[in-house]
Amino acid sequence: MPASPIRKLVPYAEEAKRKGITVYHLNIGQPDIETPPNVMEAIRHIDMKVIEYSHSAGIISYRRKLAEYYRRNGIEITPEEMIVTTGGSEAILFALMSCLDPGDEIIIPEPFYANYNGFAIAAGAVIKPIDSSIEDGFALPPISSFEKAITPRTRAIMICNPNNPTGYLYSLEELETLKEIIRKKDLFLFADEVYREFCYDGKRHHSVMNLKGIENNVVLMDSVSKRYSACGVRIGVLISRNKEVMSTAMKFAQARLSPPSLGQVAGEAAVDTPDAYMQAVLNEYVERRNIVVESINNMPGCFCPVPGGAFYATARLPIDDSDKFCRWLLEDFNYENQTVMLAPATGFYSTPGRGKDEVRISYVLNVHHLELAMKCLEEGLKVYPGRT
Amino acid sequence: MPASPIRKLVPYAEEAKRKGITVYHLNIGQPDIETPPNVMEAIRHIDMKVIEYSHSAGIISYRRKLAEYYRRNGIEITPEEMIVTTGGSEAILFALMSCLDPGDEIIIPEPFYANYNGFAIAAGAVIKPIDSSIEDGFALPPISSFEKAITPRTRAIMICNPNNPTGYLYSLEELETLKEIIRKKDLFLFADEVYREFCYDGKRHHSVMNLKGIENNVVLMDSVSKRYSACGVRIGVLISRNKEVMSTAMKFAQARLSPPSLGQVAGEAAVDTPDAYMQAVLNEYVERRNIVVESINNMPGCFCPVPGGAFYATARLPIDDSDKFCRWLLEDFNYENQTVMLAPATGFYSTPGRGKDEVRISYVLNVHHLELAMKCLEEGLKVYPGRT
Repeated sequence: MPASPIRKLVPYAEEAKRKGITVYHLNIGQPDIETPPNVMEAIRHIDMKVIEYSHSAGIISYRRKLAEYYRRNGIEITPEEMIVTTGGSEAILFALMSCLDPGDEIIIPEPFYANYNGFAIAAGAVIKPIDSSIEDGFALPPISSFEKAITPRTRAIMICNPNNPTGYLYSLEELETLKEIIRKKDLFLFADEVYREFCYDGKRHHSVMNLKGIENNVVLMDSVSKRYSACGVRIGVLISRNKEVMSTAMKFAQARLSPPSLGQVAGEAAVDTPDAYMQAVLNEYVERRNIVVESINNMPGCFCPVPGGAFYATARLPIDDSDKFCRWLLEDFNYENQTVMLAPATGFYSTPGRGKDEVRISYVLNVHHLELAMKCLEEGLKVYPGRT
Repeated sequence: MPASPIRKLVPYAEEAKRKGITVYHLNIGQPDIETPPNVMEAIRHIDMKVIEYSHSAGIISYRRKLAEYYRRNGIEITPEEMIVTTGGSEAILFALMSCLDPGDEIIIPEPFYANYNGFAIAAGAVIKPIDSSIEDGFALPPISSFEKAITPRTRAIMICNPNNPTGYLYSLEELETLKEIIRKKDLFLFADEVYREFCYDGKRHHSVMNLKGIENNVVLMDSVSKRYSACGVRIGVLISRNKEVMSTAMKFAQARLSPPSLGQVAGEAAVDTPDAYMQAVLNEYVERRNIVVESINNMPGCFCPVPGGAFYATARLPIDDSDKFCRWLLEDFNYENQTVMLAPATGFYSTPGRGKDEVRISYVLNVHHLELAMKCLEEGLKVYPGRT
């Protein structure tokens, strides 16, 4: 497994800090937002004598609470159709291992979340990327792209909605289009919906769980990490109405005994997080998104589509090579003793050569720092030797 | 992956309880011992605003604390030679995935911990069992058994010390014997030492980490679960001095982002658990072991070697089929409205047909309940129709 482009930059960021330079980290998926106080309170009032293994599918009271959460979001799911996992990561791994045999292929529009590569390797699955384009804001590729990519080994299509790294929010029409391919070819549809709450400009999130007629094909992967800014609890969930998939996934779940018990206590409390908290977080992200998108679109030669959700944007810059540029920002540049760390988009493409003029920006810093970071980017682009 | 023999019994145990029968669970690895109060206190006083991802290799202050723990146990290890994992389970999985290619073989003396099967399947590795025998208390098989089992695909030997399911504690001489094979054939030596503290009768535990001359071959898998009766925190650790192994394992660790942050807080506090707690637990287990071993050896036709460690014993009973017997105990038998749930040893053997006259007993209940459970077993054996 090759090291990711972001990981390769870490030593340069550390070296910059040693030189006394402030580095704004727009390269990570760890929000700075505080975990809801009700979650921290639940942990502080934990009432256990023995921190036992939970049920391999998760504590039943937590799964019932999750069913409540999904019902509120218009998704009808029973506790039996869920397996609580160790983060969304394990949900992805279980989904791949349960539905695909080694050598089976999975189609994913690129750019896509880089860690899918690692889970595919672990499951012996082969990722077949298809192009989505920055020109139309990374919308769902046309149906012909999927059809061209399908081979006798194709078993699944995977989407992330809203998307990491593009922030694109799929419309109901796009999901209906996907449904037709899934039904026609009898494939699995894997959907990573961990950013469900983060939809902007009055747009609504549509879950794959509500696509009629492909109930047995859909596998949902979810997580509390981003929703409640609690990445460290390592609690996710795998959901499917397909009994065979769940029965296979359950065997993997039993082999690793149980998801973290303390994290489940946090997750159960998190379902009761007040609307006011969620709304405040949403407002904060919208403001940040606007700063990022407007700043970049005002920089000569730059283009950033307006993301409809999540807290990422993928932008095109006038640069020769995003890996080199991101390293240069850390190694050879600073503006008033500050610089910015971005994620080269090359890590989100599996087609070699793609993403060389794109970067991913996570808007996980407060508005003030984000503005300073955008200034660094603007000044950096003015003097970058590899500018095109 | 087939369902384990224990899992198959669960519905029968539930049915027995519905009928009002008390079921003594000697089938599980979940101790009833209370988690140390200092661990619970650390959780209640947790001081975080955001429950963030930790470093993928684990929080550095926790790894430093772990180095202290190992030093106290005579093992010199640096934080760089550790990756904190999501339970011992993930340490096993990372070890197999990092050291073995699909189709590579790993030799394990049987009976062995049944979940090794699941992790081997996930890693594409093939387990080659070799016989250990109840007659000599499940001691290390002779060197000739290992030599016969080695093929060009053999990459590793795995031991669990003290052993689950037998309770056997390997002597220094046995480990030195293993070392010679490892060195001669340049194999990996995987050691699961999660029961390190639980050694009885004044016997000392010897770690594979202290075997001289095979430093680059040794991979240690450890966990806080059993040591501090905190199975639900899901915190383990993978340890090796082999830089290449650790670098590969680190890529898997990065793909799943981080081990649970709350569990690491618990783990860090656990290192300071007072000796008095550990000593009290040890005394309790010795008393329980003595009850189990003496009771069984007093039952006609039964034999239970004296385990030197862990909290398991594997006993031979005068029965036709341990799967049937364990089911019969739950389905068709009760003594004064009580019965006992045991683990058929068939699940711990990968050679078909082995373990049919053996059961594993976990002494995870208090002395009083253990005595009642032994009485149930004794009375059950008197009337079991499949008695041999």
